[in-house]
Amino acid sequence: MPDALDPRFADYAGLRDVELRKSLEAEHGLFIAEGEKVIRRAVAAGYPVRSVLLTRRWAASLDDVLAGLGDRVHVVDDDVMEKIAGFPVHRGALASMERRPLPAVAEILGGTSGAGAGAGDAPRRVLVLEDLVDHGNVGAIFRCAAALGVEAVILSPRCADPLYRRSVKVSMGAVFAIPYARMENWYSGLEELRAAGCRLLALTPDQGATPMDEAEMGERVALLLGSEGDGLSSRWLHEADEPVCIPMSPAAMDLGVDSLNVVAAAAIACHGLMRGTARP
Amino acid sequence: MPDALDPRFADYAGLRDVELRKSLEAEHGLFIAEGEKVIRRAVAAGYPVRSVLLTRRWAASLDDVLAGLGDRVHVVDDDVMEKIAGFPVHRGALASMERRPLPAVAEILGGTSGAGAGAGDAPRRVLVLEDLVDHGNVGAIFRCAAALGVEAVILSPRCADPLYRRSVKVSMGAVFAIPYARMENWYSGLEELRAAGCRLLALTPDQGATPMDEAEMGERVALLLGSEGDGLSSRWLHEADEPVCIPMSPAAMDLGVDSLNVVAAAAIACHGLMRGTARP
Ligand SMILES: C[S@@+](CC[C@H](N)C(=O)[O-])C[C@H]1O[C@@H](n2cnc3c(N)ncnc32)[C@H](O)[C@@H]1O
Ligand SMILES: C[S@@+](CC[C@H](N)C(=O)[O-])C[C@H]1O[C@@H](n2cnc3c(N)ncnc32)[C@H](O)[C@@H]1O
Repeated sequence: MPDALDPRFADYAGLRDVELRKSLEAEHGLFIAEGEKVIRRAVAAGYPVRSVLLTRRWAASLDDVLAGLGDRVHVVDDDVMEKIAGFPVHRGALASMERRPLPAVAEILGGTSGAGAGAGDAPRRVLVLEDLVDHGNVGAIFRCAAALGVEAVILSPRCADPLYRRSVKVSMGAVFAIPYARMENWYSGLEELRAAGCRLLALTPDQGATPMDEAEMGERVALLLGSEGDGLSSRWLHEADEPVCIPMSPAAMDLGVDSLNVVAAAAIACHGLMRGTARP
Repeated sequence: MPDALDPRFADYAGLRDVELRKSLEAEHGLFIAEGEKVIRRAVAAGYPVRSVLLTRRWAASLDDVLAGLGDRVHVVDDDVMEKIAGFPVHRGALASMERRPLPAVAEILGGTSGAGAGAGDAPRRVLVLEDLVDHGNVGAIFRCAAALGVEAVILSPRCADPLYRRSVKVSMGAVFAIPYARMENWYSGLEELRAAGCRLLALTPDQGATPMDEAEMGERVALLLGSEGDGLSSRWLHEADEPVCIPMSPAAMDLGVDSLNVVAAAAIACHGLMRGTARP
């Protein structure tokens, strides 16, 4: 019976320990995909497999993916899986995948990068995430982006990693499909977007801002979304072409709610963008 | 130094163990509020405090809330807090609160129940959640509801608990402000809503359904939302007055995305409802 401390399982250590994973994944240039569907999508997107750890039950259904991986496929019992991962892995299969160098922001905006449909065309609808800390939120926003016709995502330097296990899982693999890049510089990061002809709309709960439905979209739009706690920095708010809001119910404040969760805001805004840019 | 196994801390046991918490909370009729803001909202909504567990740093800022609780206030060191809770409690304060009997569905629909603004009026916009399993999703949907003018939430018998710690936290306390009830019977549950004059719109990713923006709203609307995995049951889909969808990008399928996350769908739908029912 394989030992949970076996060095062949080192890629899967401490899956619930965010700080440990961050340094381990950066050091070895890897990320973890969880569950059959997501693993298949990572492979289809061209990420090389380092190894796969799975229970017997899942080995059969991933047959084709496992072919050629030789001794980098580790089939273990449920309890060993749980010991290695540190929690019960409901989806029964984990893959350690190799990261690839991220494209530069200019490359994304030029449309020369990306595996998704429409790769090759310069993206007309872009989301820009400033310092989001929650991996689940980042993943959910990628899923929204894919569902609602957003063609690229740009991250601030400190925004949470889309390839972190939880982001990947919540995105259902959309992080592999939507081209994205990370800015090198937070302070001047928006300049490049503007230079590429993007109209920058800053999403803010401030109900004095232009309602999203009335905002001018332009040929290329970038929607800026702020962090869960503080929202957009004042630097970015002021750099943007226009602050826009999603109108909230007048009763919301009395109910103790002064903003939408960032995923909800992204969803409504992307939906508005799709309707807006679909207009003739 | 207080001992983590002290019976006075029994309400706070195994906060990360969903199954344990479910039975413990049901048995003792309690729930946990986390963080100053959320604790304040629970108290303001009239939930009685059983006890409070917090670190020194937070004791001062919750002074007024703690007054009168006597020896049911437990001030402990960070490490004791972590030992009792089983994880580092970033928000430094936990309160064990008493649950109250939930109102009946009829009571909610009649508008005789609820602490929120508009309590007393029969709700015109209602969300109905069928068997959602993720507490974070339930909490996020309550926050959307509060922000976007939804006046009540009805849960299927098996839907996750809005007062579970994670739901409460993600909702930012909106679960205390939006009146809600749980159906007694899944099979016939929608009848009561229809009898109360609600037009039942079943939210489905099926792109052949009526687009949300074109759906007829009526005087009273109930939006039905389905579970993360399977979506709405066919029973509910057929019982509804009309299946409606949020249009997705034609490219979504190629990107491996066949639906929105239920929170994103709820957000877009509530936003649509607010715009729709705001029309003269
Ligand atoms: C939880 S909110 C941040 C709240 C923060 N206190 C603030 O005032 O910005 C996270 C992000 O979601 C977006 N957001 C939330 N509610 C919004 C609304 N009603 N309209 C537009 N954007 C919103 C904004 O981009 C915001 O930065
Ligand atoms: C993740 S989806 C469920 C997916 C499931 N495979 C299905 O076909 O219904 C969870 C819920 O979100 C809502 N939903 C998701 N995408 C939607 C869309 N494009 N339009 C309307 N509702 C949607 C529906 O209520 C659905 O039951």
